[in-house]
Amino acid sequence: MTSEGIASDQTEAVLGDYDVIIIGAGPAGLSAGIYASRAGLECVILEKGVPGGQVITSPMIENYPGFAEVPGMKLMETMAEHARRYVDIKEGEEVLRVRAGEKFELGTSSGRYTCKAIILATGSSHRKLGVPGEEGMTGKGVSYCATCDGFFYKGKEVVVVGGGNTALTDALYLVSIGCKVTIIHRRAEFRADQHLQLSVKQHKIPVMMDTVAEEIVEGEEVTGIKLRNISTGVVKTMPVNGVFVAVGEVPSSQLAAELGLEMDPGGFITVDRSFRTSVPFVYAAGDVSGGIRQIVAAVHGGAAAALSCFEDLMNPYYRKI
Amino acid sequence: MTSEGIASDQTEAVLGDYDVIIIGAGPAGLSAGIYASRAGLECVILEKGVPGGQVITSPMIENYPGFAEVPGMKLMETMAEHARRYVDIKEGEEVLRVRAGEKFELGTSSGRYTCKAIILATGSSHRKLGVPGEEGMTGKGVSYCATCDGFFYKGKEVVVVGGGNTALTDALYLVSIGCKVTIIHRRAEFRADQHLQLSVKQHKIPVMMDTVAEEIVEGEEVTGIKLRNISTGVVKTMPVNGVFVAVGEVPSSQLAAELGLEMDPGGFITVDRSFRTSVPFVYAAGDVSGGIRQIVAAVHGGAAAALSCFEDLMNPYYRKI
Repeated sequence: MTSEGIASDQTEAVLGDYDVIIIGAGPAGLSAGIYASRAGLECVILEKGVPGGQVITSPMIENYPGFAEVPGMKLMETMAEHARRYVDIKEGEEVLRVRAGEKFELGTSSGRYTCKAIILATGSSHRKLGVPGEEGMTGKGVSYCATCDGFFYKGKEVVVVGGGNTALTDALYLVSIGCKVTIIHRRAEFRADQHLQLSVKQHKIPVMMDTVAEEIVEGEEVTGIKLRNISTGVVKTMPVNGVFVAVGEVPSSQLAAELGLEMDPGGFITVDRSFRTSVPFVYAAGDVSGGIRQIVAAVHGGAAAALSCFEDLMNPYYRKI
Repeated sequence: MTSEGIASDQTEAVLGDYDVIIIGAGPAGLSAGIYASRAGLECVILEKGVPGGQVITSPMIENYPGFAEVPGMKLMETMAEHARRYVDIKEGEEVLRVRAGEKFELGTSSGRYTCKAIILATGSSHRKLGVPGEEGMTGKGVSYCATCDGFFYKGKEVVVVGGGNTALTDALYLVSIGCKVTIIHRRAEFRADQHLQLSVKQHKIPVMMDTVAEEIVEGEEVTGIKLRNISTGVVKTMPVNGVFVAVGEVPSSQLAAELGLEMDPGGFITVDRSFRTSVPFVYAAGDVSGGIRQIVAAVHGGAAAALSCFEDLMNPYYRKI
């Protein structure tokens, strides 16, 4: 065995050869599996952990039409069960490297897979504040998605932490719902677009600049956040019911980079309306492809990617560049 | 009362003034209602018939993730009930005319509504063959969507009627699933793209040109289709389990035309990735906006349209042209 991936690849067992391999078993990957398999494609879903993606961290989902109120974990178990009727989900199977050629070759910790097409549904992760209390209170007052969880905080006192477009949009969203919102930002100026800044002013949303979160008060539910003004050094605890963290979203696009896919400056994969990427026979769906980071968008992306993949594999003129 | 819409409008009762009015209560409209209302927008859904859209005509849905097997009617009742938690659905309220101005004005048979923004989720309808047996056997062997219903016909004998891209894609899809497929086309040549025609040849799919459907044999399920060769005049009944009709889709885009929205040659409304149309404060989602005509696409479109609408209404620089 050499230390070079390519040479060692050749000696590894081929664990499977498929029409299409779907990477990731969140809502996008599961939907892709249902649609690809129903279209008659041989496919498999490779998931580095367990199915469900980020949704499983949500205590309650209220905006996936058809499920008025469902814990994220339960919804994703239901969706995974649905997908398993059609497609095998290999859990704990992380794709470590990918290479394009006559066929695509994927290397995992267990071995090697080959396929004619790939659907990337690798998701993204929320950038964290990294302060005490944050992890323990996630789902109990700490949220990374105003669109998802805002509704639970109607009439309550919340802070939004961040200064970009997402943070200001989230603040406006929460105000619109009827929350009492304060924006906490570590710098003296916002990065967000001018119109969002003006709108925040017009809505008279209180803003604390030069301020960082130091700790989220732990308990049954969030009751407060400890803040430090970095220019004055003053520390105080502000009583709040909710902390919306909006300091960035990190797409899991390492494999996309290996494949040379076009991405936006934030690392989200560029897709067209059919969820094709810039490389033939590679598709992307769900959070890694940007757009609104909602379950509805993920299931659509997965389905559309699978149908595009079917069309391309059937097209005798469509070839790898 | 004059016969002129505008003059008579002024004398009609204003039945409601909203931030956004959603037209149509299929999956796109219902999802838009959930998202718009959760964002704090005052909204209402106006539906000319009953909620559910085309989905309610599907006996069984298997590809909306989370519902492994559900009758179309049941799924849409569940979705409408979900939406009603957030938004009022006015049934039997057909929008007959719409006019842009300081605000949008919508005229229905009951009166007049005003709003700052509109989400069009008016859907589309399948062009029918117009032959005996077609209506009675819909859902019992006659289908207008191979992606939706193909899976039920695995290993069975089916025909696809039509000669365009949809018809040939459907035929390839059904072959991929494992159906025995014959294509029936009334002309001597296909309209479909070359690659689809070549693919049909390569898959050796039997084709009957110059042939029209005359009747679908009625019974508990479809057992045959009566065909006439229009050049020879020969009539014969072909035994089949399924008839996939793919002779065109007609978007319900009359209101879009009144608003001057950009549409494609088929009359489907042009939208960007955020489901904005070419006219500020007008959004479109679901079948009327083209794309894959699937429930997953509709719920995504509705949600994204509602969030875009929220952002635009919050944007102090965004104004009607």
